[in-house]
Amino acid sequence: MSDALPAGATIGILGGGQLGRMLSVAASRLGLRTHIFEPGINPPAADVAQAVTTASYDDADALRAFAASVDVITYEFENIPTTALDILEDFRPIRPGRLALATSQDRLTEKEFLQGLGLQIAPFANVENATDLGTALSQVGTPAILKTRRFGYDGKGQARVMAVGDAEQALADMAGAPAVLEGFVDFTHEVSVIGARGADGAVACYDPGENVHRQGILHTTTVPAKLSPSQRTDAVLIAASILNALEYVGVMGVELFVTPAGLIVNEIAPRVHNSGHWTQNGCVIDQFEQHIRAVAGWPLGDGSRHSDVVMENLIGDDMDRVTQIAPTNSALHLYGKAEAKAGRKMGHVNRITGAAR
Amino acid sequence: MSDALPAGATIGILGGGQLGRMLSVAASRLGLRTHIFEPGINPPAADVAQAVTTASYDDADALRAFAASVDVITYEFENIPTTALDILEDFRPIRPGRLALATSQDRLTEKEFLQGLGLQIAPFANVENATDLGTALSQVGTPAILKTRRFGYDGKGQARVMAVGDAEQALADMAGAPAVLEGFVDFTHEVSVIGARGADGAVACYDPGENVHRQGILHTTTVPAKLSPSQRTDAVLIAASILNALEYVGVMGVELFVTPAGLIVNEIAPRVHNSGHWTQNGCVIDQFEQHIRAVAGWPLGDGSRHSDVVMENLIGDDMDRVTQIAPTNSALHLYGKAEAKAGRKMGHVNRITGAAR
Repeated sequence: MSDALPAGATIGILGGGQLGRMLSVAASRLGLRTHIFEPGINPPAADVAQAVTTASYDDADALRAFAASVDVITYEFENIPTTALDILEDFRPIRPGRLALATSQDRLTEKEFLQGLGLQIAPFANVENATDLGTALSQVGTPAILKTRRFGYDGKGQARVMAVGDAEQALADMAGAPAVLEGFVDFTHEVSVIGARGADGAVACYDPGENVHRQGILHTTTVPAKLSPSQRTDAVLIAASILNALEYVGVMGVELFVTPAGLIVNEIAPRVHNSGHWTQNGCVIDQFEQHIRAVAGWPLGDGSRHSDVVMENLIGDDMDRVTQIAPTNSALHLYGKAEAKAGRKMGHVNRITGAAR
Repeated sequence: MSDALPAGATIGILGGGQLGRMLSVAASRLGLRTHIFEPGINPPAADVAQAVTTASYDDADALRAFAASVDVITYEFENIPTTALDILEDFRPIRPGRLALATSQDRLTEKEFLQGLGLQIAPFANVENATDLGTALSQVGTPAILKTRRFGYDGKGQARVMAVGDAEQALADMAGAPAVLEGFVDFTHEVSVIGARGADGAVACYDPGENVHRQGILHTTTVPAKLSPSQRTDAVLIAASILNALEYVGVMGVELFVTPAGLIVNEIAPRVHNSGHWTQNGCVIDQFEQHIRAVAGWPLGDGSRHSDVVMENLIGDDMDRVTQIAPTNSALHLYGKAEAKAGRKMGHVNRITGAAR
């Protein structure tokens, strides 16, 4: 722990949403402070951070002042403008590093990276224009899904191509943005592995969780996931190979499709991940603390699981159910957002379903 | 939950030490904010609170502004000046209430209250001067311990009277403060019950923990405590009777001596308690969240225990051991205090010793 941040040191976090909020809380457990950089006012993380900078990602002076005031920089989302990262990295280490960000910011780069590691992924093709689209359709076939290469999340920036006739409209939906056509994968269910890699190269992965989505947004994650012992091992080895190849420092979410032909990597997220929220009540050290430990140069903690958990996101009007949830054997995690809009993640609940199986 | 504070509401906390810090974190999980009132600069709780007032407890204007800015007021220590409470209660509810504070702020009042409930306590006598001391010694006998009635904590304001000849020096140690002489209790071990009572009158108690002190400061709390099933029931019933008699709202620590003749109440603390820190990693809902739920008018959560835990305080130089502790199956909770002084509580560690027995 010679390079570990001492008590009272400050972690700079880009982004002040619920992930930044829960990272701040985890930092406090280790005696560390956080400073949030966020363009929006009154972000959820501000309630529990020692300092907040409200500024745009193109405000170079604000970025410099922020970077100079912290000891290390991390982030809660991957779509940080490259120009901002260029400024920040002159001052302090950014963890996870630029390679992980560059890889995950662009679906095409990410797919080529995963393929290069010898991992199974869905068939894909680059689509920059109508000509590419024709070629891509002949390579990938239908049904398929057209996705923007950059800035997509929670199902945004995606259009289905059920038959060749849908393709023109799907391309129009991309509004000229470079895109990737992905073939459908015939999977039975989706799982994700939350993996962590320390500054010392040690890797620790949580038990895979099984994800169910509704309307493109994660609905529940259940641990343990339905996986055979060998699938479980494969899932963890896939995550570890990605972490090592990127010389990653921090926590990463790796989404996998389970198919009869094995596990197919869907996508990676270079940050704490919604599908890892169950660790807050299923493990002694949760994903948020594991991430803080990694970026602060601490040894990773013990991520073993003591309980079976079902995590459910509370979206929009789901907040009306808090009254019923509160007295049950469940842990509520609310983000302090004032207004419950449709589709807005307001909190989540970890329901304990028993001791770890 | 009709009177429950909604997301975004603010809990005012008197005192910004580690207990206030961990209360702030718990409040954030429920979507609530905290505002800390604390005379000292850079208190541990400031790192995770939405607002901090730095002012003295005799600054009436600061107290009024603080009270007006919050929705309910609670505290992390019981020795709040009565004059401050008088000002605050004109603005917002104080939870736990004045009765609990008045009772626990004065050892004599507390002992008479406990005796009035029919609970077993150590023999005691009021000592205001040398004449009283002689009478008290004849009533209580030796060995005994002379304690100031007010403002004692962690063994401070106490002097042992092993024989009658020690009495004069012990009285001098009190420096004229009203005191109580307590007879020694021949106990095998000490346990404590962390109990909670909601605004709706519901009571929930955690499993008793077994406490070991060193040099007057709590060293470890181990759950489960060595207690027979009937002792365990007695311990919980004692705590519940105290909570109900005080019409208490919040979490209370009740320290009990285990003797062959039954459980003897040592003292009560009208707040979250060091001997309840194990709940952070032994239960789904910890003592800090339980306290926040109560003072915020929420239903109490499920305080059942999923793991066996040994909580150990990290005092002063114990911080040097953090390096060894970090990678083990233990959860560190550090308070972010810059300087590790002898006798100063710097953090604690919850070591998981297995699934709940």
